Amino acid sequence: MCNTRRMYRNFSFLIALALAFLASADAATHPGMSQVLEHSRPADWRPVDPENTLYMDLPGGRVVIEMAPLFAPVHVRNIKTLAKAGYFDGLAIVRVQDNYVAQWGDPQNRRPLPDAIGKSTAPEFDSPLPHHMPFTRLPDGDVYAPEVGFSEGFPVARAVAQNRTWLAHCYGMVGVGRDVAADSGNGAELYAVIGHAPRHLDRNVALVGRVLQGMQLLSSLPRGSGDLGFYTPAEQPLPIKSIRVAADVPPAERTNLEVLRTDTSTFAALIESRRNRPEDFFKVQAGRIELCNVPLPVRQIAAHSP
Amino acid sequence: MCNTRRMYRNFSFLIALALAFLASADAATHPGMSQVLEHSRPADWRPVDPENTLYMDLPGGRVVIEMAPLFAPVHVRNIKTLAKAGYFDGLAIVRVQDNYVAQWGDPQNRRPLPDAIGKSTAPEFDSPLPHHMPFTRLPDGDVYAPEVGFSEGFPVARAVAQNRTWLAHCYGMVGVGRDVAADSGNGAELYAVIGHAPRHLDRNVALVGRVLQGMQLLSSLPRGSGDLGFYTPAEQPLPIKSIRVAADVPPAERTNLEVLRTDTSTFAALIESRRNRPEDFFKVQAGRIELCNVPLPVRQIAAHSP
Repeated sequence: MCNTRRMYRNFSFLIALALAFLASADAATHPGMSQVLEHSRPADWRPVDPENTLYMDLPGGRVVIEMAPLFAPVHVRNIKTLAKAGYFDGLAIVRVQDNYVAQWGDPQNRRPLPDAIGKSTAPEFDSPLPHHMPFTRLPDGDVYAPEVGFSEGFPVARAVAQNRTWLAHCYGMVGVGRDVAADSGNGAELYAVIGHAPRHLDRNVALVGRVLQGMQLLSSLPRGSGDLGFYTPAEQPLPIKSIRVAADVPPAERTNLEVLRTDTSTFAALIESRRNRPEDFFKVQAGRIELCNVPLPVRQIAAHSP
Repeated sequence: MCNTRRMYRNFSFLIALALAFLASADAATHPGMSQVLEHSRPADWRPVDPENTLYMDLPGGRVVIEMAPLFAPVHVRNIKTLAKAGYFDGLAIVRVQDNYVAQWGDPQNRRPLPDAIGKSTAPEFDSPLPHHMPFTRLPDGDVYAPEVGFSEGFPVARAVAQNRTWLAHCYGMVGVGRDVAADSGNGAELYAVIGHAPRHLDRNVALVGRVLQGMQLLSSLPRGSGDLGFYTPAEQPLPIKSIRVAADVPPAERTNLEVLRTDTSTFAALIESRRNRPEDFFKVQAGRIELCNVPLPVRQIAAHSP
């Protein structure tokens, strides 16, 4: 939507991200991640489009999700329709399975869906390779896919020979729960990955985005004691106050975030700073990095009062 | 110690493990994990040696850790010395960093160490390839190491050309915190991996075991708001009631566990059941599996009253 670029120019920056490692780097070698980010330029970052952002407000705070309409346009449209209809408000997080997923929605389908949402939605598990989409390829290979890297801020896999690409199930990715039928997920049931990347789910589920902020509100929830981590009737599922599209939230109540662009030399330097860690702590360099271990930096920005 | 084999024969079995996927398998294809385990034989399982087992008793329950003296003999000996001296009792979990580690001990070194524990301990980050250690190699490669697989129930990596092997930082693995100096970790500060495998730590830290039961007691803790996820003074670190070696605990108070042997045809079938998932849910088979996505089944056994 429209004015994000202008908002971006007017913001003063407030770096609020807790980086995974803040240790100082050895000046004799290449820079560490903290130095890479310190030297980033404003153009290395992009504001997150409020039209593609969900706020899941929980009793403990806000989970901010950036959606990926380029990869799952129909599911993202459904989710926005549901959010705008207030569908999720008062529902709950119903499943927390350790080292796997936190899931929310209405698993018994008790709440009627808005008319615009059909019972079935064509799978969006992968898509043809787009012509114009940037792709920053990781050099170290992948166990699951011929090629992996980053497009538009998301971890992706590619099979060029098959002309297909898909989002990868890294920590913090958000997907659409479904039943056995491939077209049975419409967006009314969502989950976030809270453990080691379950990459076997790739191309079996529509991934629709990733959590930019508030992951700990999901990952630190009590695990459900039922099968697959579903909460039992005796357990208290965490209620969802509301899920809204950020663009529908008054500007004063928004969480304004920027993400590091993944098609920049700064991001390439960040990858290198994690393949070979210059911090004194590391005695042996991995010299390699796996897709889901690459940090995707997010920073909070404060709106400038004009 | 010593009598674990006899205990094993006398046990009646009580399967208590919640498996990651309980969905029924398609009989037309190969078996799913639940069928593989249903058809396992008693000899496919081994009891966990109480001399190599730690109980960390927390207010919410017990974390059971199997130690790996074959990989880190000095550190494991230190940790047992500390546990037997009651060193950890009344200390706390001091750091919980999202998608990374939960860490416990005495980071300010305020509590005096037993005389047997030196200030420095030679690194045990990797070891020569042992002659007699079974190794079940995974067929699908690895981003970080030339070869990966399982030895003695632990995820391991190997570099045959360098004659080295090391434990891998998968979810639930337990390591020894240290300062910048490679020999600065003695076992008084420990952590468990609670997120996506931080494999860049491999060969930089002494891994000493893995959590067999109670992971959710660590992974669902509130994240610390300080640098690196350390709890700030305003936050309430979770106290440790005690850490004991299981052999020192009266039999009636023990948690008796068995783990699936990783050098069996049953375990090989389990790996295959996860590389190609027969459950109807899966529309595309990964056909591959990554080291830290292989389940290492654990089951609780009840002591038989003779």
